[in-house]
Amino acid sequence: MGAQLGDASAPARLAGPDEAIGRDELALATRNHGLPLEALRYDLSPPGLHYVLTHYDIPYVPDDTHWYLTLVGSVRSPLRLDLADLRAFPQVTTRVTLECAGNGRALLAPRPVSQPWLVEAVGTAEWTGVPLRLLLGEAGVEGGAVEVVFTGADHGVERGVEQDYQRALPLDVALGTEPEVLVAYAMNGAPLPPQHGRPLRLVVPGWYGMAQVKWLREVRVVDEPFTGFQQRVAYRIREQADEQGVPVTRIAPRALLIPPGFPDFMSRTRVVPPGHVTLDGRAWSGWAPVTRVEVSADGGRSWHEAELEPDGGHPWAWRRWRLGWTATPGEHELSARATDAEGHTQPLQQPWNRGGFANNLVQRVRVVCPDPDEVR
Amino acid sequence: MGAQLGDASAPARLAGPDEAIGRDELALATRNHGLPLEALRYDLSPPGLHYVLTHYDIPYVPDDTHWYLTLVGSVRSPLRLDLADLRAFPQVTTRVTLECAGNGRALLAPRPVSQPWLVEAVGTAEWTGVPLRLLLGEAGVEGGAVEVVFTGADHGVERGVEQDYQRALPLDVALGTEPEVLVAYAMNGAPLPPQHGRPLRLVVPGWYGMAQVKWLREVRVVDEPFTGFQQRVAYRIREQADEQGVPVTRIAPRALLIPPGFPDFMSRTRVVPPGHVTLDGRAWSGWAPVTRVEVSADGGRSWHEAELEPDGGHPWAWRRWRLGWTATPGEHELSARATDAEGHTQPLQQPWNRGGFANNLVQRVRVVCPDPDEVR
Repeated sequence: MGAQLGDASAPARLAGPDEAIGRDELALATRNHGLPLEALRYDLSPPGLHYVLTHYDIPYVPDDTHWYLTLVGSVRSPLRLDLADLRAFPQVTTRVTLECAGNGRALLAPRPVSQPWLVEAVGTAEWTGVPLRLLLGEAGVEGGAVEVVFTGADHGVERGVEQDYQRALPLDVALGTEPEVLVAYAMNGAPLPPQHGRPLRLVVPGWYGMAQVKWLREVRVVDEPFTGFQQRVAYRIREQADEQGVPVTRIAPRALLIPPGFPDFMSRTRVVPPGHVTLDGRAWSGWAPVTRVEVSADGGRSWHEAELEPDGGHPWAWRRWRLGWTATPGEHELSARATDAEGHTQPLQQPWNRGGFANNLVQRVRVVCPDPDEVR
Repeated sequence: MGAQLGDASAPARLAGPDEAIGRDELALATRNHGLPLEALRYDLSPPGLHYVLTHYDIPYVPDDTHWYLTLVGSVRSPLRLDLADLRAFPQVTTRVTLECAGNGRALLAPRPVSQPWLVEAVGTAEWTGVPLRLLLGEAGVEGGAVEVVFTGADHGVERGVEQDYQRALPLDVALGTEPEVLVAYAMNGAPLPPQHGRPLRLVVPGWYGMAQVKWLREVRVVDEPFTGFQQRVAYRIREQADEQGVPVTRIAPRALLIPPGFPDFMSRTRVVPPGHVTLDGRAWSGWAPVTRVEVSADGGRSWHEAELEPDGGHPWAWRRWRLGWTATPGEHELSARATDAEGHTQPLQQPWNRGGFANNLVQRVRVVCPDPDEVR
């Protein structure tokens, strides 16, 4: 009757050439959720529309009066702060677009077996909290420090390794002001919803979701680089399993369309009546401001530059774009492609790695434009 | 270049014997979401944890001041009411467990191809609004009326039929007090979130989700039975495609476990350290109060009666149950089974129909209990 953690927990793998979505991937897809793409219309994504990815269980914290954040490790004065202590620090609100590092994974061939996102693992919110640099300043970082390790209250096992969810940031990022990392206690002006980290989470503008540690309970300053599972095993860009790989960090540029017209329930194909349509959507990059969005209505053969809205003083949030189009009867494939000020752009062929990370292949939206007498 | 709605919209079908989840099912699973089962701990499911199923797009209603509900058809005084008008009627708050009629569908063999729920399409909230019977009383129902048809603002195409989402209730249900149907404008004390019907929805306690019309804009009293798509084509229990079928109405009993221990990320298998564990969860039925919950820890070979909490004055909401269990090293399969006061119970063999509706097969939760020295 002996049992081991490994009986519950298999190694990472790629799907076979003809292997469709499995029960394990489906179980993740039914509990985590993306942004329904029509919700790209909201500047700020309400809870339940903003994407959510939770590795383990969502911790149950019905009462946050006994929640403590500790700042420990290579600091002169370790801190133990409750929510009232944190609210006494200067408060900052930042509008931030977050995206899962695995967004787009289920479209890859071969498909890495994990949370099977198509393109919808994104959301934008206003996060309110304390700049991390102020907390680190209060604790006093010692001279030999190189990184800061963040620990959440979410606990589970992954590829045989039992763990609390933990991630680290380089010290310069943790202390930085561009972006400024937040220990956040509010989302869109309200206390954090349970699935977004109630009562406390990290927000690292411009970085993929794996850095945004939720249910934050410990901040530890360390003198050696962190070697935990989520840093050294997961969230690395590798083509071969035995490579050390490159860490996943900032969000690659992406544009998404608000799907025009109306959907078919099952295929999600869009039905667009003939005539003029404004195609619009959002675009973002964690590397630099988005400077160009191009749109194709013919499956990528020709591209047309969209009008891009100013960032409105929100450099870490998505920007709106729009372009007029005339739908004519027949089938069409719509795409949008973002480019940022540093020249990062979206590839037309899939960028592939074993984790399916930072994959920003352009979206393809199938549209059927019926003959005029066929729609209401 | 001619195109038809049917090019976007295929007939209903069953998956083949070896056919895994397809791209279309996955696209539904990434946008709709279930209740993460650990959230069964909350008496009331917060937005983002309560299940959501939307047939078409979620309507975008940033400003509800120009939203009108009309009551028309076989009434003496047609009404056109805005939200302020509705708030002037007597207000009722009811705690209601809602479940999708297709919950459990993805576990069926053969699998009906549609939203691929496992067991998590459920949630409980307090809904506040006006009793529908008061609005119908104000409008004055004419003598020949038999049904009331509800129209939402969500628009799409389904199996070739372009439609606004519409469902009907028999007149006696619409006018009833046990349960009392609500036109609701608040969820858990706050305005409805967009995905739950902002600004108005129907709440029919005890009935499956298809009856709970969201983004409600019209209530029409009719003298003939309604023959719309969602009433006569979809949401019928049929074994053969050409049967007229039986309408889906009230929620069959179901019990779910709060998964004990902690999960493996990918397999969602539960790891439970050896020793005493309180197994607990929720149980509900739309037919009658749940009167018994039995629990099995050995794959259904033996069953033990759980302690059932009183309903706390909330007859239309789930009830909590609990039972002690001692986890011993090895693998276990946990199940729970609800029975209601009318004798409806959960089957141990799958109840099958072509839509995968009202399928309340008992849940199976795989647990690995490692040797004591293997867990932290």
